[in-house]
Amino acid sequence: MTTEEETKPEEHSIFIGGKPFMNYVTGVVIQFKNKAKEVTIKARGKFISKGVDVAEVARRKFLEDKNVSIKNISIGSEEFENKEGKMVNVSIIEITLINN
Amino acid sequence: MTTEEETKPEEHSIFIGGKPFMNYVTGVVIQFKNKAKEVTIKARGKFISKGVDVAEVARRKFLEDKNVSIKNISIGSEEFENKEGKMVNVSIIEITLINN
Repeated sequence: MTTEEETKPEEHSIFIGGKPFMNYVTGVVIQFKNKAKEVTIKARGKFISKGVDVAEVARRKFLEDKNVSIKNISIGSEEFENKEGKMVNVSIIEITLINN
Repeated sequence: MTTEEETKPEEHSIFIGGKPFMNYVTGVVIQFKNKAKEVTIKARGKFISKGVDVAEVARRKFLEDKNVSIKNISIGSEEFENKEGKMVNVSIIEITLINN
């Protein structure tokens, strides 16, 4: 049994990485089928394009029966230390979808 | 001499493509130096990550002296016919920066 805290909307996040594209689309769709009110897709660097594709395909192809729309999109930068010990910046995007 | 119509904010757009990254950053910065109130960065498909990077680098590294912030970010899909005559979708992003 899940507690109320475990089902807070802000905890429904999908982090985009190197797995097959449809894994992430399915992840978003399943969370909405499981009654999530909001799902946030998060991506960094080169995965940002994939993150936008995931949001669009999930919304347009798989959630047509639900009334899912884009609640918010934010972009920003994160600093991290690379292998050579140099501080570098990477861009990030967060796309929050909401089931109205 | 430019007419009022030619200097409407919505006409200050930068389309992201295959040119070197700094070309686009410079393009954004020059438009703000030339007194543009708003500049919109537009990118499709695999160029979306690059578009977000351009917005972040222009804003954080080159427009620190100005008060440039993100006014709006939108994502969507466009349908087009590929070389094989098949209709395919591509994701798009538009990031509007504003000089406050």
